[in-house]
Amino acid sequence: MKKAKKNIKAAILIIGNEVLSGRTQDLNVSFISHWLNINCGISVEEVRIIPDIEKKIIFNVRDLSRKFKYVFTTGGIGPTHDDITSLSIAKAFKVKYCFNKVAFSILEKYYGKNHFNEGRKKMAKMPSGSSLILNPSSAAPGFKIKNVLCLPGVPSILKSMMGNLKKYLIKGKVVKEKNVSLYTVESNIALALEEIQNKYLNKNVTIGSYPFFRLGKVGVSVVLRSDNNLSLVKCYNDIKKMIIKKKIKEFK
Amino acid sequence: MKKAKKNIKAAILIIGNEVLSGRTQDLNVSFISHWLNINCGISVEEVRIIPDIEKKIIFNVRDLSRKFKYVFTTGGIGPTHDDITSLSIAKAFKVKYCFNKVAFSILEKYYGKNHFNEGRKKMAKMPSGSSLILNPSSAAPGFKIKNVLCLPGVPSILKSMMGNLKKYLIKGKVVKEKNVSLYTVESNIALALEEIQNKYLNKNVTIGSYPFFRLGKVGVSVVLRSDNNLSLVKCYNDIKKMIIKKKIKEFK
Repeated sequence: MKKAKKNIKAAILIIGNEVLSGRTQDLNVSFISHWLNINCGISVEEVRIIPDIEKKIIFNVRDLSRKFKYVFTTGGIGPTHDDITSLSIAKAFKVKYCFNKVAFSILEKYYGKNHFNEGRKKMAKMPSGSSLILNPSSAAPGFKIKNVLCLPGVPSILKSMMGNLKKYLIKGKVVKEKNVSLYTVESNIALALEEIQNKYLNKNVTIGSYPFFRLGKVGVSVVLRSDNNLSLVKCYNDIKKMIIKKKIKEFK
Repeated sequence: MKKAKKNIKAAILIIGNEVLSGRTQDLNVSFISHWLNINCGISVEEVRIIPDIEKKIIFNVRDLSRKFKYVFTTGGIGPTHDDITSLSIAKAFKVKYCFNKVAFSILEKYYGKNHFNEGRKKMAKMPSGSSLILNPSSAAPGFKIKNVLCLPGVPSILKSMMGNLKKYLIKGKVVKEKNVSLYTVESNIALALEEIQNKYLNKNVTIGSYPFFRLGKVGVSVVLRSDNNLSLVKCYNDIKKMIIKKKIKEFK
C-alpha cells in the first residue's frame, strides 16, 4: 500500500430502490466510512443514494469518479434483472461488458458445473479490464475499474470483502477523533466553542457539536477531528478548560 | 393539500460531518422516505450526504432544487458554529439571512427573556421569505424556502415536525408495495422474475429482488411497487403462480 502525506477523499454511491423507498435501512455508509478512515486514511466526503436506473448510475459514476480519488459503490451486482450496476458502469466508462475469466472460474467451481445457471453466470460479467475484489462469504467477486470499486449491498458480505480491496488503495493520513459528552445544552457552549474553533481553523481541527437524549437527560457531544495529532490534543485541552470554567459536568 | 395525478419526486440532502465520518448512523432517510410516500404520495428519488461546508451546501441545494419537485434537508439548524445550513441556503437563493419575527417570538417565549442568549437567537435566523415548520418538541422551527424544506438532524425532533410540513406539499399518488419472502436463492428465480418484470415494464410495476439471511437460513424477498393497484395485484398473482410452479416455499 503506497502512502500519501494527506488524508485522501472518497465518495460512496449506494445503488438501490430498496434504500430510497425506506424499506431497507442502509448500514453500509457508516461501516465503509469508518473502515476507510481507520484502515486507509481515506475520508468519505460525499454519499449519494440513487435508484436502479441505468442513466442515473452512469451519470453519478462519471460525476463522482471525476470529483474524488475513489468511489465505492454498493448494490446491484447480483444475479437478478434489477442488478444493473456492472453493465451501467461498463457503459459509464465506455468499455465492454463481458465475462471475467477468473470470476467465471471462481463461480463455476463454487456452484459446480451442473448448477452454474444463467443467473449465476451473470455475476461473472463486468466491465472489461476490471480487477477483482474477492468475496470470502459467497464467492461472487466485486471489482475495481479505474477509481471505482464495486461492492455488494448485503452488509455482512460487503464487510467480509473490505480487506481484499485494500491493495488497490493509496493510504492517506488517518483523521483522529476525540470527544467529550457534556451535561449541558448546545446554546450554553455555542459562543465558547466558536471561539475555540476559530483558534484552530488553520490548524486543521474541526469541532462538531451534537445534542443527544440519553436515559431521560439531555446532553451535548463535542467531537474534535484532525489528521494532526498535536493540534487535536491542544484543542481538546482548550475544550476541557472551557468545561471547567463553565462548571459543566461530563457524562462518563 | 392539493392533489396531483402522478407520484411526485423529491430528494433528501443530509448535511453533517458526523454522518459522513461514520460516527452517526443516519436514521432520517428511511423515515422521511417512507413517511412521504405513505402520507403524501411523494417518492424520494435521490439522497445526498454532504459535510458542513458552505460551498457544498450551496451547490447541492441549488442542484437538487432544480432537479426535484421538493428537497428535504436535515441537520445544521442548531445554535452552534457548525450549524451553517440556514445561512448557506440563504446564499444559495441569494436572499438575506435575518431574524424571522415569528420564530424569534416563539423562541423568546420558550426560553424566557433572561435565558434567550445569542446561540438561541441564532435559531431564529433564516433565509428571508421563509415559511415556518413548527417544532412541538424543542420549539426551534424548521423552515421552507422555495421548494426546499429544512429540518433538524435529531431523529426524534424531526419526526415530531413532519405533520407540520404537510400543508406545504402537493399530494401525489401513493406507491403501493407487495412482497413475498421465499426459501430460495436469487439465481433460482432470476430468469422467471425477469420475464415477469418485462411483462409489467409498461404497466409501471417495478420488481426488486433482495437476498437475506434469517435464523441461519438464506432467502429472497421479492418486492413489487406501483402506483397502479390493479397492475400491482396482477403482477403479484403472476409471481405467486411462478412460486407454485417452481415448488418454492414461502417464509410466513
